[in-house]
Amino acid sequence: MLGVVMHGPRDVRVEERKDPEIVQPTDAIIRLTAACVCGSDLWPYRGVEHLDGPTPMGHEYVGVVEEVGSEVANVEPGQFVVGSFFASDNTCEVCRAGYQPSCPHRVIMGSIGTQAQLLRVPLADGTLVATPELPPADLVPSLLAASDVLGTGWFGAEAAQVGPGKTVAVVGDGAVGLLAVLAAERMGAERIIAMSRHEPRQQLAREFGATDVVEERGDEGVARIKDLTGGLGAHSVVEAVGTQESMMQAIRATRPGGHVGYVGVAHDVALPGDELFFSHVHLHGGPAPVRRFLPELIDLIWRREIDPGKVFDLALPLERAAEGYRAMDERRAIKTLLTF
Amino acid sequence: MLGVVMHGPRDVRVEERKDPEIVQPTDAIIRLTAACVCGSDLWPYRGVEHLDGPTPMGHEYVGVVEEVGSEVANVEPGQFVVGSFFASDNTCEVCRAGYQPSCPHRVIMGSIGTQAQLLRVPLADGTLVATPELPPADLVPSLLAASDVLGTGWFGAEAAQVGPGKTVAVVGDGAVGLLAVLAAERMGAERIIAMSRHEPRQQLAREFGATDVVEERGDEGVARIKDLTGGLGAHSVVEAVGTQESMMQAIRATRPGGHVGYVGVAHDVALPGDELFFSHVHLHGGPAPVRRFLPELIDLIWRREIDPGKVFDLALPLERAAEGYRAMDERRAIKTLLTF
Repeated sequence: MLGVVMHGPRDVRVEERKDPEIVQPTDAIIRLTAACVCGSDLWPYRGVEHLDGPTPMGHEYVGVVEEVGSEVANVEPGQFVVGSFFASDNTCEVCRAGYQPSCPHRVIMGSIGTQAQLLRVPLADGTLVATPELPPADLVPSLLAASDVLGTGWFGAEAAQVGPGKTVAVVGDGAVGLLAVLAAERMGAERIIAMSRHEPRQQLAREFGATDVVEERGDEGVARIKDLTGGLGAHSVVEAVGTQESMMQAIRATRPGGHVGYVGVAHDVALPGDELFFSHVHLHGGPAPVRRFLPELIDLIWRREIDPGKVFDLALPLERAAEGYRAMDERRAIKTLLTF
Repeated sequence: MLGVVMHGPRDVRVEERKDPEIVQPTDAIIRLTAACVCGSDLWPYRGVEHLDGPTPMGHEYVGVVEEVGSEVANVEPGQFVVGSFFASDNTCEVCRAGYQPSCPHRVIMGSIGTQAQLLRVPLADGTLVATPELPPADLVPSLLAASDVLGTGWFGAEAAQVGPGKTVAVVGDGAVGLLAVLAAERMGAERIIAMSRHEPRQQLAREFGATDVVEERGDEGVARIKDLTGGLGAHSVVEAVGTQESMMQAIRATRPGGHVGYVGVAHDVALPGDELFFSHVHLHGGPAPVRRFLPELIDLIWRREIDPGKVFDLALPLERAAEGYRAMDERRAIKTLLTF
């Protein structure tokens, strides 16, 4: 099969990889319908994260089940499935509490590499959710978005305790930030402030429900949020970048007693204890428990109540994946869909 | 009047200070019934916090109202009152949300110094709560504890989302940590693990409701908590120290999806973003909004349902305050009551 392999910073190749096989009786093999590139794939692409040799890439996936192991009971060959970027048993105490990426049996799908034609999914029963039937082609991008960026934006909004009557600010205008705007709108936020200086992203944020756009960053961005909120800051702030600047921007833009939901993978972040102490904010976040949200998200997509697939503004055949990485790195594309 | 003044590290003196007067029409003057020394007073005593010259000390207080300004409506001369260590208007949006120490009009009582015979309390209507009548003498220590350490332990437990069926760990065996144990017991925790290596404090923790005591600290302490919780960590952890070690101990002892309530004033703490991200914990804390809890706490004390005054294990006349600081610094006393 063909799959994307990163050989080093800015060196993405599409290569022949060995077809996956059932290894554990709880595995499933799926044939991908589409794949995509994630903002977090740009960390190693830019050399911020170090790779030990050539690495299969990707952690988002949708597809049709080809084969299942002997212990798989919840999905069967022929079904269309969406999975989380962490495989999990979904039966242990941690999973039942809704924190599947911290499942003691978790497998991070990025370690397998989902930008490929075929994929082995460990713990298939706990990880995959089937759609009611095979989806029409135009729903595939949205279902693929549910596998990570939608579920992650959703978790960010939930961790930030978004709800009716609240003012929400979103730091980061990548796919996750934009979908946190969509999530906030669905959760009934009264006012949604997207922080973005890129016109096409601002426009998509507005389509997803943003009521205001703030172009300033850092202290100036914080000052603008305070201006818009009677000097207090937002009730809920979603952090969807993962840098020191964006985390501090999120904490400082939140009112005392408010909530920061952080879903940008933290890189070189150190939070000053004294400032955090006196900020009186709540902090929660981490790798999104997408599996917790998948049934609800698939249902919303199936009923066409949300269209998160709009974040894909570039579609390329798998063979041209390198071009898709480049476009996202240069911020010419929000998110690249890889077709087969 | 007499009042405690710190002249530098380990240099505490009781001196004649000017009697306070009504400055704002929202002020009240109270005559203290008792005062006390707080664990946080030890930061400047030990030279960790720098003082700019001689500084009046103390931020906890109970007493009888002597005089009120022309705009004070909720308390009157002759009433016995308990106040929070932050004065606040208790009417603004932040106060109504329950975060009185972040009130835009707040005054930190430590800047006035409550270890004295008389005290000016700003924003008296928003800050003071009167008892039903003059209290019997044996309730005074508990009412004084409500002014900070009880309210702070209570907030720690609330921020850690303590509740029925949960396992709670408390990092720190000072008065706040011990009273967090009491709070956890009142909030219905199933299991309460006190982390302490001091026998008298362990005993008091058990009196307050601790079901287990862990003597180990740092990584060993974390390992013991995991042993006691099926490898997962506690649902709720209260951090009541404020150092890097204690914060990391608290975060690491909490299960994914669990809650850390931190109330130890942070000193030289920097939280590593990546570890926090993958921990999946909730973090909340800061200066306790004691005013939020005061009516409930006073009621519990008045009905003798709780006896937080037990944390005072040394009573000295105000004139011997220096001895009280020294005993706490050397951990010979948990908390010093200053009598008049």
